[in-house]
Amino acid sequence: MNPPRPTHLAQVILRDAIEEGDTVIDATAGNGHDTVFLAGCVGEKGRVLAFDPQEKAIRSARSRVDAAGLGCRVDFYQTSHSRMAEHAEAGSISTVMFNLGYLPGDDHAMTTESQETLLALAATQGLLKSGGVLSVVCYPGHPAGAVEAAAVEAWLSSRAAYGWRTAKYGMLGTLQPAPYLLLARKA
Amino acid sequence: MNPPRPTHLAQVILRDAIEEGDTVIDATAGNGHDTVFLAGCVGEKGRVLAFDPQEKAIRSARSRVDAAGLGCRVDFYQTSHSRMAEHAEAGSISTVMFNLGYLPGDDHAMTTESQETLLALAATQGLLKSGGVLSVVCYPGHPAGAVEAAAVEAWLSSRAAYGWRTAKYGMLGTLQPAPYLLLARKA
Repeated sequence: MNPPRPTHLAQVILRDAIEEGDTVIDATAGNGHDTVFLAGCVGEKGRVLAFDPQEKAIRSARSRVDAAGLGCRVDFYQTSHSRMAEHAEAGSISTVMFNLGYLPGDDHAMTTESQETLLALAATQGLLKSGGVLSVVCYPGHPAGAVEAAAVEAWLSSRAAYGWRTAKYGMLGTLQPAPYLLLARKA
Repeated sequence: MNPPRPTHLAQVILRDAIEEGDTVIDATAGNGHDTVFLAGCVGEKGRVLAFDPQEKAIRSARSRVDAAGLGCRVDFYQTSHSRMAEHAEAGSISTVMFNLGYLPGDDHAMTTESQETLLALAATQGLLKSGGVLSVVCYPGHPAGAVEAAAVEAWLSSRAAYGWRTAKYGMLGTLQPAPYLLLARKA
């Protein structure tokens, strides 16, 4: 057995953290893998708010969620995740997931951008309830991703001053910088 | 939910990796928490070889294992884990766990020592079967622990040249260096 990939470990840990009936956010719907995962976790009475600026991503994610029979648990928003606070109440969210990679199969032209990501994290801070969990999978293997990963890691580390607890998981000894997971609990 | 502690995450991941009937090693029996965990994972036909140089630790671990009704699955060796190759066949072990902390409740005089630990890791390399998993919880919060943690991390990172895959998990933004988990799969 290989050590789990960061995307897989995020799901293993969040499955324990999310309770039925929770409202959660998929900040980067992408192809909908995490959206389906979250919709499964929140149960029939829970809600998933899923964000992506790309029409193609929303279409792909919605199709995957519908195929899993979970469409009635998910609201899709085709907009930047930096605007998520317009669609949820402060302190109402138990979990927010980010996956900062490309839309798989896409041409890699449209990466998530550091500035937007930091704005989205700032929004997350207000939306999460006390004890809520934030997970972010970062991709430092390309230059823009490395800048973004460093910015996200610095921001999350600085939350320790506000009582947040943050953990990092990633591979060692790789030739290229490998994807890694940041996991944080709001105080 | 807080991000899991390194000791807990090690168990979450190894529970999936260990199969019934496996032979595994607890390289640092300590108070027996990991010994009991491993004895549960290997099932009735599996074996746990548990090492510790301290009589007090062996006594404590054996007592905990017996209380869990798992004594018949465990062989205890009161000796340095650097000598584990004397008690197991090369390529026969599916999992080796290290916890490099103190025996809880001990006077902190007897830490595991870097040189012994590196010798034990070298032994582990020969004992593990292909695909076998090594987990090490390091404690860099005191000076000897920081030296040991750096040595272990460097050794494990260098195994990438032999096709091993290694991951690291730990807390960010702590005032003191926090314990962390290293997890590796032998090629």
